[in-house]
Amino acid sequence: MRKVTYGGACSLDGFLTGPGEAMDWLHFSPDVQRIMAEYWKRIDTILMGRKTWEFAAASGGGGGGPSKGITTYVFSRTLRARPPKGVALVSDDAGGFVRALKAKPGKEICLMGGSELAHSLFEAGLVDEVGFNIHPVLLGAGVPVFLPSRQRIRLELLENRTIDGGCVLATYRVVG
Amino acid sequence: MRKVTYGGACSLDGFLTGPGEAMDWLHFSPDVQRIMAEYWKRIDTILMGRKTWEFAAASGGGGGGPSKGITTYVFSRTLRARPPKGVALVSDDAGGFVRALKAKPGKEICLMGGSELAHSLFEAGLVDEVGFNIHPVLLGAGVPVFLPSRQRIRLELLENRTIDGGCVLATYRVVG
Repeated sequence: MRKVTYGGACSLDGFLTGPGEAMDWLHFSPDVQRIMAEYWKRIDTILMGRKTWEFAAASGGGGGGPSKGITTYVFSRTLRARPPKGVALVSDDAGGFVRALKAKPGKEICLMGGSELAHSLFEAGLVDEVGFNIHPVLLGAGVPVFLPSRQRIRLELLENRTIDGGCVLATYRVVG
Repeated sequence: MRKVTYGGACSLDGFLTGPGEAMDWLHFSPDVQRIMAEYWKRIDTILMGRKTWEFAAASGGGGGGPSKGITTYVFSRTLRARPPKGVALVSDDAGGFVRALKAKPGKEICLMGGSELAHSLFEAGLVDEVGFNIHPVLLGAGVPVFLPSRQRIRLELLENRTIDGGCVLATYRVVG
């Protein structure tokens, strides 16, 4: 079964972007570049919601366009735009689609967000790991990493280390 | 100037207590006992909001009652109950009161919460450090560590280490 990992850079108060989609607080250090390059080798699939995709496409990166050997699935019931090569639109139930995807042969799967897609995949029990690069900042508002949930989810810490810029890199296995 | 530290145990999704004030997820390990015993020696003052105080008093600990050499200030404009010895009610503006308190001689000051009092003291620029014992759990809902704020606050990581139970102990200096 292929592993689904949810994560990314966030603030200590749990936001993926600040007010107005601010990302100027991101510390894109050589440490982060190394970590991302290693992670990129382990995956062949990216999952994202419509808003995350539109944001990534508008900012010209983050899986918004085609990357060699990577398939991006964008989950939306409303999107009408024809996606570029390497990007597939999914209007089916996200849980059912990802459950089938995990059972197929392939490399790891990156759940890039946003929090709504992550929420539905957590509820369906389809997220295997979470990993955050917690930045030393309180953003106050923005796009949250986690939406409110009725479910309590136990985690197991796999790694915790400090990287450049006073960032805390913490990865967890989802216990259930 | 006396240092004000805000912090405590929280979940990875940023809650101090879970739904229904659940605290059964807390891992009160020998590591935590040692850290708390060391921290307790450095403080002589605890600040808390009414709800936190009522919760602490009801659960019979956490500064709700008198502790030797510790003064607890409970901030409330509505509380009428006569507090026990060692506990003082403050109905003044929290910012002005804490600013004056910091200028007086004494040991460090522990801002125990809740998030509303913390929010007003952050807004007033009176919090010097934050420190969290991030537990490996997603609670989904509960009392948040941080309330939404219009302010962005930069932090500087002072320490990050893993303690018993897969908890991440991260402390920060508030840069501003």
